[in-house]
Amino acid sequence: MHATAFVPGHVTGFFSTHPDEDPLRAGSRGGGVTLSHGVETTATETSGITLNGERVAVEPVERVLDALDAEFGVACETPLPLGSGFGVSGAMALGTAYVVNAETGAGRSANDLVSIAHRAEVRSGTGLGDVVGQAQGGIPLRLEPGGPGYGRMDEIPGGARVEYLSLGGLSTADVLGGDTETLSAAGERALETVRERSTQSVFIEASRQFAEEAGLLTDELREILRSVDDAGSTASMAMLGETAFTLGTGLSDAGYDPEVCRTHPSGAGLRVE
Amino acid sequence: MHATAFVPGHVTGFFSTHPDEDPLRAGSRGGGVTLSHGVETTATETSGITLNGERVAVEPVERVLDALDAEFGVACETPLPLGSGFGVSGAMALGTAYVVNAETGAGRSANDLVSIAHRAEVRSGTGLGDVVGQAQGGIPLRLEPGGPGYGRMDEIPGGARVEYLSLGGLSTADVLGGDTETLSAAGERALETVRERSTQSVFIEASRQFAEEAGLLTDELREILRSVDDAGSTASMAMLGETAFTLGTGLSDAGYDPEVCRTHPSGAGLRVE
Repeated sequence: MHATAFVPGHVTGFFSTHPDEDPLRAGSRGGGVTLSHGVETTATETSGITLNGERVAVEPVERVLDALDAEFGVACETPLPLGSGFGVSGAMALGTAYVVNAETGAGRSANDLVSIAHRAEVRSGTGLGDVVGQAQGGIPLRLEPGGPGYGRMDEIPGGARVEYLSLGGLSTADVLGGDTETLSAAGERALETVRERSTQSVFIEASRQFAEEAGLLTDELREILRSVDDAGSTASMAMLGETAFTLGTGLSDAGYDPEVCRTHPSGAGLRVE
Repeated sequence: MHATAFVPGHVTGFFSTHPDEDPLRAGSRGGGVTLSHGVETTATETSGITLNGERVAVEPVERVLDALDAEFGVACETPLPLGSGFGVSGAMALGTAYVVNAETGAGRSANDLVSIAHRAEVRSGTGLGDVVGQAQGGIPLRLEPGGPGYGRMDEIPGGARVEYLSLGGLSTADVLGGDTETLSAAGERALETVRERSTQSVFIEASRQFAEEAGLLTDELREILRSVDDAGSTASMAMLGETAFTLGTGLSDAGYDPEVCRTHPSGAGLRVE
């Protein structure tokens, strides 16, 4: 039987970007939510990468396979859409690191595996903070940017129902490649707010404030968020995707038919055999 | 309904002690195993602390209640014996921090709660590394001593069946108050070995080597560990208790009737309501 890893999806609510020449020091500060919907990755006899049965080219996964000298491929399964703000590429990269380590008996520690996947994401320009959040689980806060040994994490206590509604994708590379000054200033303010009071309601309000200030809301997303306001709750936007999310029942209360899952208490790991 | 927290039990396999005047910098380096057997803590209307229905005085829990200005008490339930190397006092302290935070809406982050419980354990002399291990889950490695912001953690990937057999207690305070030089040197060597190859089998072998070198094995424990050797497996001693433990089926293979649980993938947290 081949090793299988599960890595939770991760929706960022707010963030600031912190580039660095060393990809292990590069990253983001911010806050997000890990999801019980995630990516299951299994080693395969044949080389190459599949996602829900289709051959795909996912640069961070290729980088992880190279870094660990894998002589096989991986099959990934997920209910989450790729490129829509759920950290699917990060989950695929981290899951790949876990299964390759298990298959080859390389004896790498969790920090090693997270470092390899974080570096691969940063170098590919596909993410800055998903991997370290996905490694931790729960509602992770990235206090300082970077991989293990450089970054510093915290967490908002407790679990919650999560609802999300995805309209489509946004290119992480395009947004991160553009002017991120306004966005990062808003992200720093949101993190400060959440560090003062680390509760779920403060988190979702700070995420919403960030979404307004970062200037990434589309008209359709703004309409959804306002409907949730009208229903007496608060939703925000998944960074980076055209996706609305909330903790609790806000989207269904507003009459939408969202996907429903929960926060994921544990981080990435191997499936129990 | 009152908030309930679950904190996994934690068995240390090897450690070195690192005292410091600042209890957040004090701690241990080493490695351990978190258990699906743990402590469930619930807030109670009345003040005071109960463990499995009996009134108890547990200093680190009292310190946590004081630190968070709790005007109520806690009821703890556990299948684990107190004082036998399972981190029960640390689990009670950390669980108390979680439920008081939830009940009072204090808005503390997970790092805050872990810091409060770690400080309480260190000041009480009841533990040096259980709380940070229990906060993380899995098979935690304490690379650097201390609470959040000072200590540094890693993890051995994967989960496992855990078997344990408890003969009775050892006083953590007595052992930590004695000469720990030989013990700490052995603990540093064990950590180095596990960091070179972070696998479960290296972990249990390094734990066994440490138990031999630390000079804490009783005759009865030594006999159990040798029986497991004869059955072709490896068990070690829970630090600090007269308790044998192993990953896998070593104790039952050797003809004993151990308690059986699993490693606990997620760390301490509130129970889902």
